[in-house]
Amino acid sequence: MSRLITSLDVDLGERSYPIYIGQNLLRDAGRFRPHIPSKQVLVVSNETVAPLYMQTLLDTLQGLQVEQVVLPDGEEYKTLEILNRIFDRLLEKRFDRGCTLIALGGGVIGDMTGFAAACYQRGVNFIQVPTTLLSQVDSSVGGKTGVNHPLGKNMIGAFYQPRAVVIDIETLKTLPARELSAGLAEVIKHGIIKDADYFTWLEANMERLRALDVDALAHAVEGSCLIKSRVVSADEREAGQRALLNFGHTFGHAIETGMGYGNWLHGEAVGAGMCMAARMSRLLGWLTPEEEARITALIEAAGLPTAPPDLSPARFMELMSVDKKVMAGQLRLVLLKGIGKALISDDFSMDALQRTLAGYGA
Amino acid sequence: MSRLITSLDVDLGERSYPIYIGQNLLRDAGRFRPHIPSKQVLVVSNETVAPLYMQTLLDTLQGLQVEQVVLPDGEEYKTLEILNRIFDRLLEKRFDRGCTLIALGGGVIGDMTGFAAACYQRGVNFIQVPTTLLSQVDSSVGGKTGVNHPLGKNMIGAFYQPRAVVIDIETLKTLPARELSAGLAEVIKHGIIKDADYFTWLEANMERLRALDVDALAHAVEGSCLIKSRVVSADEREAGQRALLNFGHTFGHAIETGMGYGNWLHGEAVGAGMCMAARMSRLLGWLTPEEEARITALIEAAGLPTAPPDLSPARFMELMSVDKKVMAGQLRLVLLKGIGKALISDDFSMDALQRTLAGYGA
Repeated sequence: MSRLITSLDVDLGERSYPIYIGQNLLRDAGRFRPHIPSKQVLVVSNETVAPLYMQTLLDTLQGLQVEQVVLPDGEEYKTLEILNRIFDRLLEKRFDRGCTLIALGGGVIGDMTGFAAACYQRGVNFIQVPTTLLSQVDSSVGGKTGVNHPLGKNMIGAFYQPRAVVIDIETLKTLPARELSAGLAEVIKHGIIKDADYFTWLEANMERLRALDVDALAHAVEGSCLIKSRVVSADEREAGQRALLNFGHTFGHAIETGMGYGNWLHGEAVGAGMCMAARMSRLLGWLTPEEEARITALIEAAGLPTAPPDLSPARFMELMSVDKKVMAGQLRLVLLKGIGKALISDDFSMDALQRTLAGYGA
Repeated sequence: MSRLITSLDVDLGERSYPIYIGQNLLRDAGRFRPHIPSKQVLVVSNETVAPLYMQTLLDTLQGLQVEQVVLPDGEEYKTLEILNRIFDRLLEKRFDRGCTLIALGGGVIGDMTGFAAACYQRGVNFIQVPTTLLSQVDSSVGGKTGVNHPLGKNMIGAFYQPRAVVIDIETLKTLPARELSAGLAEVIKHGIIKDADYFTWLEANMERLRALDVDALAHAVEGSCLIKSRVVSADEREAGQRALLNFGHTFGHAIETGMGYGNWLHGEAVGAGMCMAARMSRLLGWLTPEEEARITALIEAAGLPTAPPDLSPARFMELMSVDKKVMAGQLRLVLLKGIGKALISDDFSMDALQRTLAGYGA
């Protein structure tokens, strides 16, 4: 039986949409049908997720003209070329502007399907069904869609909002433990940047989360979505506060790029990146050693790396300079003045950055 | 010397922008600089236009970090694959979110550059410098950007507004006569759908326009931009009135697709398409034979075809069914109830459509 545990609305004016969180929502036609305006539906998934959940979703959508595209699984396939397979199918099937795209999978599938929906005939309906913890708490809120380029992650994309997000907590039971941990990185991030109480709750409940306790997971997903949707609602286009969500990401993207896409999971790189940003904040005197230790300990308890791989400081600087957070050559970083208190700054001593990078040498 | 002849504002709230129309505006730095917020500028052009005007524009932009991409010329290169060359250059040069893309060329360059600007880092600044009559009166107003797919034109794209449009009438002096005629198709269309007085002015001035009289051209460009921007301002997302701009286009796209991209110019296909739509309107009893004759005569006077190529009615119907104007299988067409009075309708006798298609048989 399907059970709606909770739901929330992301408030973006006329582009507002609901996020449903529950058990077996993949079987709940009532969650989908109000958001599908015509019979034409394309479900996009990947070779890992489709065998697990495609048939369930197809059964739920019976009576509609449902087509599917199953893409290869992995960040390395998040390219314009693979994206084109979605357009191929839409056009082969003569889908019109009233059609609906459903993303069934993790962040890569969500980003690509959302971008395809943004671009197909200049914009069609889009529903997210995120099946990984990372995508449930991160990619499904905020409207960021896109693909990678060999010279940088997420460099080609659009801001595009889904009509609805349907989160079935049950799908986490087939998620590899390593990917669960990667998702927890973003959960922890939300506490660190905005909500000390939520951070404390995570410290107390990390074991339940890793043991796949449904109530704990639903609470964490809801809490993270609330924090993120609050930030995004206030700042849809990332001019200001939204950039706080990049905490740990400038370091993290450098790690991902430096190691080659897919060798480190995004969440793992962000985990290490957050430890680096906390370290740097402490070296700047903005964070106490105790706060840094709590952050590092929670990231470790989530099963995540707390230090970067062996990249030289010079290579790190080079990798960070293509990051989107660099404005006209000036490096801006999200740093901390306490747990729950992040800020974006380009006014820091480069010495603290250099010492942070050097501190992890082999 | 550069001379601003006239300008108008396209009113789209916070995305409003000016259109400047004049002589030698390519040399007028004052038209560009207020719309370029950072030093990073990429000019995108093609192999035909770049040798004529790139150096002039580079001279005008001196002092900025200006890069260029020169694409092959032609509708057949309006693809995702060629688009990627723009992203390659932007990333090779480490252009950030504050950069500006300038489209120097016709509709294909404008559509591709605008789409690249919409997608690069999820949106950067964009200035249009349309150098063909068609793009001056059509592609540069309305924010439609995108690329083609083998199964349909403009199927992948975005609505994205430029910061400014700079129209240098002098560039029309290097335009092949056939392309000038193609641009006149859209000029005539604006009169037919919205403004009988403008249509009458065109009847009286068609010779001056084809003789490249600068005052006449500036007046026609302004008049067409005003009509189009009025329609677009009222209806940015094409739900209703904006669809009137598709007059002649459902037939026209079928011609273009059926003949293979590039064999008929877009404007030529629209010219023939408008004659077909006028014919069908007359067969429905909505347009008088005299009005149909005036429309056909003006299109002919512009140097445009007034009949489609030899495509069977069955093939025509097939080609029209993938057009974006088909909603859930129901064919919608823009038809006329008089010159200056267009309407969108799915409530017409299929017999009139069949007779229209059959009427042009070889």
